[in-house]
Amino acid sequence: MDHAADPSHPRYDSLLKRQLLEEAAKAGMLADSALIAHGRGEAFDYLLGERTCLSAALATAEVAARLAAAQNPIISFNGNAVALAADDLLRCAAVLGCPVEVNIFYRTAERMQALLDHLRARLEFISTEGKPDAWSGDWAAACTGVKILGANPNGKIPGLKGNRANCETNGILAADVILVPLEDGDRCEALVNMEKDVLVVDLNPLSRSAMMASVTVVDELTRMAANLLATLVAGTGGPDLGWDNRGILQAALDEMGGLMRSKFS
Amino acid sequence: MDHAADPSHPRYDSLLKRQLLEEAAKAGMLADSALIAHGRGEAFDYLLGERTCLSAALATAEVAARLAAAQNPIISFNGNAVALAADDLLRCAAVLGCPVEVNIFYRTAERMQALLDHLRARLEFISTEGKPDAWSGDWAAACTGVKILGANPNGKIPGLKGNRANCETNGILAADVILVPLEDGDRCEALVNMEKDVLVVDLNPLSRSAMMASVTVVDELTRMAANLLATLVAGTGGPDLGWDNRGILQAALDEMGGLMRSKFS
Repeated sequence: MDHAADPSHPRYDSLLKRQLLEEAAKAGMLADSALIAHGRGEAFDYLLGERTCLSAALATAEVAARLAAAQNPIISFNGNAVALAADDLLRCAAVLGCPVEVNIFYRTAERMQALLDHLRARLEFISTEGKPDAWSGDWAAACTGVKILGANPNGKIPGLKGNRANCETNGILAADVILVPLEDGDRCEALVNMEKDVLVVDLNPLSRSAMMASVTVVDELTRMAANLLATLVAGTGGPDLGWDNRGILQAALDEMGGLMRSKFS
Repeated sequence: MDHAADPSHPRYDSLLKRQLLEEAAKAGMLADSALIAHGRGEAFDYLLGERTCLSAALATAEVAARLAAAQNPIISFNGNAVALAADDLLRCAAVLGCPVEVNIFYRTAERMQALLDHLRARLEFISTEGKPDAWSGDWAAACTGVKILGANPNGKIPGLKGNRANCETNGILAADVILVPLEDGDRCEALVNMEKDVLVVDLNPLSRSAMMASVTVVDELTRMAANLLATLVAGTGGPDLGWDNRGILQAALDEMGGLMRSKFS
């Protein structure tokens, strides 16, 4: 990606993220379909003007509130989430005092190992160098407390076939509130059927995951993770008991549609 | 891609195309960014309902008319175009009696060779087995007449840096009308600046290529190539001297926007 070296390129931010994905692919962290999925996200982000819209800001605040109020929150990582937002999502887990779990659709021992190793290395890094500015407390201890799960899947998500149901009983299975960025539709549905509070980040407001989630943040994951961290550090309000997720999806669609109307006429 | 084996899957067609791209990537025909670009296209096609809209049908008819009326038409192939639509685009070249040229953004000797070899093999195949149903005439001779250019870039497209300007003097440089599916924005602009008639296939109506082209077909390439072939075989009208490409782009945007309005409210 020779473009990415040039910060004056109009698509510099987008190209940097693309580069993160390409590096993760070379490191064996991604399935074949991961780059295609990232491209789909790029297109929807393009229609959002590559910025956090009001719908996304409101949904991120609600995600923060629900994670903070949860009994057993957890953050689920797939390959793209690790590639794009490992540091900020691990910081969120440290602030929340919750575990994270690697949870991938095309599960192989090699990919699991690559992802777990990368998360462990990033946690070590942020423990010493990555304290959020506004955080007060024992940051190293908070980081040490973050369990990185996924290596020992001793449970199954009901309703899913094969090893894509695999998860840990003390991790995803035990969680009441789960943040699953970039989740597959089938698995999102299975988690909702378990009556968990399922918080999704998905740039396509029309995807099955987006439509089935309890809360959907229609935003690019690196922006969302940074906003989530800032909100968790600053402190959240309580969950909104009347949360209207369909309204939030329509607001995101309206943002995208606004760019399209009367563009050329 | 274990999904792709199941024709009952709601996204079967999309998954089959994805598989073509993944196979081409394994065969060394694609740059790293090709899968991401394909994903962007998937998202826009999703918003089109994965069908050829009126805007695309009109634009494809205009592309056929301009290619048929050209002095020196040519069809340019990049990696994704080879992966997705080699057969139908080669058939179009045979019907038109025009050359094709491999013309890639991230040019390496290995990728050029893989793409040229694949096109030669597909031309051989369609010469014996791939005659369009409605075609009459000497199909084998028509196929033999299709020159596959790109191996000996002895010319440059003015205004482009490095080897992405490379092309053949008897190919792209000599063409008055060029079909460049899935073209990069910079190269599209450079071709337009040469006062060529530039015919683009691009699922993003807001891309630089889409906005700068003489005619933009906002459609998925395999559908477009099949429609183009059918139109060329059936016979075309003359070019539309008052062609309104901005109107055609707005019509495609309106198709996408229609899906978004009042989806959830």
